[in-house]
Amino acid sequence: MIVTATAVVVVGAGFLITLVDEKEYSNLGVGLWWAVQTVTTVGYGDVAPSAVSGRIVAAVVMLYGIAFIAIVTALITSTFVARAAQEHEEAHARVDVSDRELMERRFDELERKLDAISAARGPEGA
Amino acid sequence: MIVTATAVVVVGAGFLITLVDEKEYSNLGVGLWWAVQTVTTVGYGDVAPSAVSGRIVAAVVMLYGIAFIAIVTALITSTFVARAAQEHEEAHARVDVSDRELMERRFDELERKLDAISAARGPEGA
Amino acid sequence: MIVTATAVVVVGAGFLITLVDEKEYSNLGVGLWWAVQTVTTVGYGDVAPSAVSGRIVAAVVMLYGIAFIAIVTALITSTFVARAAQEHEEAHARVDVSDRELMERRFDELERKLDAISAARGPEGA
Amino acid sequence: MIVTATAVVVVGAGFLITLVDEKEYSNLGVGLWWAVQTVTTVGYGDVAPSAVSGRIVAAVVMLYGIAFIAIVTALITSTFVARAAQEHEEAHARVDVSDRELMERRFDELERKLDAISAARGPEGA
Repeated sequence: MIVTATAVVVVGAGFLITLVDEKEYSNLGVGLWWAVQTVTTVGYGDVAPSAVSGRIVAAVVMLYGIAFIAIVTALITSTFVARAAQEHEEAHARVDVSDRELMERRFDELERKLDAISAARGPEGA
Repeated sequence: MIVTATAVVVVGAGFLITLVDEKEYSNLGVGLWWAVQTVTTVGYGDVAPSAVSGRIVAAVVMLYGIAFIAIVTALITSTFVARAAQEHEEAHARVDVSDRELMERRFDELERKLDAISAARGPEGA
Repeated sequence: MIVTATAVVVVGAGFLITLVDEKEYSNLGVGLWWAVQTVTTVGYGDVAPSAVSGRIVAAVVMLYGIAFIAIVTALITSTFVARAAQEHEEAHARVDVSDRELMERRFDELERKLDAISAARGPEGA
Repeated sequence: MIVTATAVVVVGAGFLITLVDEKEYSNLGVGLWWAVQTVTTVGYGDVAPSAVSGRIVAAVVMLYGIAFIAIVTALITSTFVARAAQEHEEAHARVDVSDRELMERRFDELERKLDAISAARGPEGA
């Protein structure tokens, strides 16, 4: 989705800039070339808008570029964090299971003792 | 808040640079244009400070730009990480509930047995 | 691995650009210089592709650059997050142990009482 | 520490570049100006190394710049993630406490019943 949005922004801005600043951007190719180097914050400056309207378009693309980089980084980071948490948890799951098994054994022991008391009483209570 | 701070930095630096480096920056428009491409680290270089004072302003804006990008990325990343953790936890909550239900059943069983022993003893103890 | 991949991209793109845009890139040195400033998104613009094919190569390097920065950031971030989680968990482990010890003591107490009842009954049931 | 390391890299590279590429960098001021715009990946390109040795220094500063940005982002992100986890945990701590209280009540009830059985038996066993 971020890929699609970025493609739309690059193509949209590349086209729009040829409309508002045609002195600098003579064709769509130049517009796209400028848009991709702006959205990635590379910014060679071999083509840069000189008209105010072009600079406003550029500012929007730059800010979108920051959001784009931040979202791509966030997506990859959260995947890495989740994977690390998963591995950590699997290592801990063994501890939790042994905790639970211990509890189960304690309950089993209590029940066994209660059953023994009941059984011993049984004949007498009958 | 980061958006407001960045807007203040861009407008403030865009204005300040016109004061300290008026040879390069003839009006506020050029100052703002330069500030936005600096804070986003695009840096076309179509306008760049040549005076020492202007370069010091620029260095501050650049370093703020790094902080700006880092904070935006951190905000989005921590949201994504929290959401992934939430979903993971909800999946695990079912396991915890079944663990707890199992414990409850073991307690119920022990109580039932104790009550049976008490009841059997009752008449005898009376 | 990301270091190797980036080295391959820089050398590959630095070489490829000398083939497709030899007017701008007269030798491999210039190609490598351009590739490294593009993949890190610095983009001075002292050398920039003017041919369409060169610009397509550049766009790929720029997008790879975003992925490169995002992955490096994600790797470092997930290490920091895991370390913080580890420290937090170690602090909490003490609480968990004391919880478990409390449970163990409650079970011990129940068993002791059951044993006392059994022992008291013993002679009588014999 | 990352701030100190970055200051050292900027001053060191700003000085070194004046030694290896004195044609472009006539004084330390220009060197520092270039170093700060390179380490932040802004890269106006108003000053850029033309000698091979200068470009090698630049490549090192660029790669350090990526590490710098990644580490700053990682530090801020892990702080945000830890804070979100802390808040989440505090909300959950209440649930854990109520779980534990429930367990405690179940144990209390079992003990009370066992004591009742013991007491009822007491006179008889005496």
